[in-house]
Amino acid sequence: MSSLVPQGELRRIMPAEWPHPADFAAPPSAAQRATWAEADLAARPQRLVRLRERMAQEGVDGYFGVRWEHMRYLTGLPFDESEVTGSGDSGKFLVGAEQVWVIADSRYTIAVKHQAPESTLFNADRQLVDSWAGLLATAGVTRVAIEAATIPHLTWERLVAAAPDVELVPIEGWVEAQRQLKEPSELERVAAACAVADRALATLLPSIRPGVTEKELALDLEWRIRTGGADRLAFDVACLAGPDAALPHGAPGMRPLETGTVLLFDFGAQVEGYRSDMTRTLFVGEPRERDLEVYGLVAAAQDVVFDRLWEDMSAATGGGTVPIGRTYDALARSVIEADGRWPVYGHSLGHGIGLATHELPGLGLRSPEEPLPRRTVFSVEPGIYLEDDIGVRIEDLVILDVDAGRVEVVTRFPRDAVVVGI
Amino acid sequence: MSSLVPQGELRRIMPAEWPHPADFAAPPSAAQRATWAEADLAARPQRLVRLRERMAQEGVDGYFGVRWEHMRYLTGLPFDESEVTGSGDSGKFLVGAEQVWVIADSRYTIAVKHQAPESTLFNADRQLVDSWAGLLATAGVTRVAIEAATIPHLTWERLVAAAPDVELVPIEGWVEAQRQLKEPSELERVAAACAVADRALATLLPSIRPGVTEKELALDLEWRIRTGGADRLAFDVACLAGPDAALPHGAPGMRPLETGTVLLFDFGAQVEGYRSDMTRTLFVGEPRERDLEVYGLVAAAQDVVFDRLWEDMSAATGGGTVPIGRTYDALARSVIEADGRWPVYGHSLGHGIGLATHELPGLGLRSPEEPLPRRTVFSVEPGIYLEDDIGVRIEDLVILDVDAGRVEVVTRFPRDAVVVGI
Repeated sequence: MSSLVPQGELRRIMPAEWPHPADFAAPPSAAQRATWAEADLAARPQRLVRLRERMAQEGVDGYFGVRWEHMRYLTGLPFDESEVTGSGDSGKFLVGAEQVWVIADSRYTIAVKHQAPESTLFNADRQLVDSWAGLLATAGVTRVAIEAATIPHLTWERLVAAAPDVELVPIEGWVEAQRQLKEPSELERVAAACAVADRALATLLPSIRPGVTEKELALDLEWRIRTGGADRLAFDVACLAGPDAALPHGAPGMRPLETGTVLLFDFGAQVEGYRSDMTRTLFVGEPRERDLEVYGLVAAAQDVVFDRLWEDMSAATGGGTVPIGRTYDALARSVIEADGRWPVYGHSLGHGIGLATHELPGLGLRSPEEPLPRRTVFSVEPGIYLEDDIGVRIEDLVILDVDAGRVEVVTRFPRDAVVVGI
Repeated sequence: MSSLVPQGELRRIMPAEWPHPADFAAPPSAAQRATWAEADLAARPQRLVRLRERMAQEGVDGYFGVRWEHMRYLTGLPFDESEVTGSGDSGKFLVGAEQVWVIADSRYTIAVKHQAPESTLFNADRQLVDSWAGLLATAGVTRVAIEAATIPHLTWERLVAAAPDVELVPIEGWVEAQRQLKEPSELERVAAACAVADRALATLLPSIRPGVTEKELALDLEWRIRTGGADRLAFDVACLAGPDAALPHGAPGMRPLETGTVLLFDFGAQVEGYRSDMTRTLFVGEPRERDLEVYGLVAAAQDVVFDRLWEDMSAATGGGTVPIGRTYDALARSVIEADGRWPVYGHSLGHGIGLATHELPGLGLRSPEEPLPRRTVFSVEPGIYLEDDIGVRIEDLVILDVDAGRVEVVTRFPRDAVVVGI
């Protein structure tokens, strides 16, 4: 049985005690990567079985998908956000009773053959709408579910006109719901991505000196992530100093770093398509007492959530119900509100992560009232933002596996008050 | 009057004659960047006048935009592809008779105030659909054009339901059509992005050695672009060696570079939101005669296009008609077909570029039958791809300004046969 990382008193971590890159797992080997590819290959038939069960429940005989995450999950073709612009109809897919067709123009045909070997290539060098009726006839589909939260309205109207006898059923969330329940090899890849990110930040610490800019540090950290085992970033690195850290969506700027303030990094890696997401707020120079108190309160809010997760998991392991995600958000808020000195964060406490950086489950005030999946991974990221002053956020990823009795913080970089730039 | 870069015999450029970084324009200064920001500020009212003229022609009193390029062009808020995932409804915008509203949740309100100062912030911390009727009422809009090729079908249906008395008019291409006619300061930024890319490739040449991988070279070139004056990449660097270069959409791989083959780079920079796009195919080691012949034919196809552009511009300067883009694609193909030894490229000859990497005008076989804009910038990128053997593509950006008598290749890196790795 795994347990939480130890949560002690808030300590200052001076340079002599800084985490060392070797504290974190090494980047995955080629053999490990091959094992994951095999696990995906073995899992895809079952993923399709579950989707077809849903299709049968809802009375459709086809599923037309347009989101790259779903296509990758169900077929193996490794698209991500960077393929959305410019790929045209390539990467859209149709699930029928027996087969899956992946639409691809000539640029992608070799990739489909190699990386989506169980799927059938449907060549669409012209616009998909011209082949739509033929595709549906080939697949024997007469009533097709379509991912309506993503497909453009104009495309929808053109598909309606191209096959007037086929009924289009707007749906959303079917594959999202399935993807939040993670397979063990998916969790391994998220943990591997966490280790790449942890290690990259550890190697960066000596470079954080007064005078360097947010932008230089963001680029430096990105480089360490991408040459340290990541296939890509999960998202653009946020590096925000002092008052900038109070902006929940600031971009790194050209202002030189000053001593006596905080420095917030929010960043993540991708390993074989799976992502990490972490935030650390460091102290540049000797921390101010008030800043340490803000930091301590954010850490306390996170602790309370970790403790409750552990209790709830223990209660649920024997077949009990897992609580809904929004209860943890309410819990973290209550810690900051009870203290009363500073405003509570305006965002959500956390989000699921996997092939996409943000996915189900949601741990926000307005998340659906559904229990957390029994095996999943999500962020816990409370924060306190004092406008024109400072911002503090601490974000860790937690793996929850109720039936294995596991609640594990897989972000391993210390959560103590790390002091840099002195 | 500017003219084309000189097109001579195909020469081999050995290391002693390699282009030097100082051959290319220096990265733009802060003063230059400020000038461009002022030019945008001054241009935006006129951009809106043109959109409102179109709205009046089409009988709508509102325009609801969902594409980040259009929002940036009309309001100044600097979104790009990286904001599409995760920004929710933020960045959508409504143009009314007098005002422009930019929708933003709390993460973006400060950015809207600073960077889109002429627009009105419309706060949407909850879902836009809940405030849709109120927004339209505030704006006095009763018949609204919507970018239907981008807005999701489900969103469309929800907007219909949220304000049943308002008529939604599906449209596409209005702002795209306007954006292809470039302002002088837009062309300056594209040219500045070209210089950043040219210079980055020039600094990379000594690092291209047998044994390094495509992936290492792609990352190395990316770094030189991003630390050499670019705000971002225009798109992921393609670096493809030998047979990989025959894949029009390959991703850089782990195979070590070998001598006696070609190495294709397709890459671009962003400078203040405007982009470059260039392809160079280098020779690793002593070029094979056959490869040089392929290269020479691709270069010849490009030359014929450049020459014809010059003739056509001269004929059009006095008020004549500018030819349609697809005629140049047909012309380039005819050169490769007339030679008869190798297959003609399967993609388009070229595309417009600006805030987006691919935009109007199109120079492809299936591009619309419309004359090129009188002041615009586009790529000219013929190629020859021999499967499992080699690929050669040469891509330059060309500025066309008919009324100024200008046809200028703004990609300055030599187009001769550059030999590396020896």
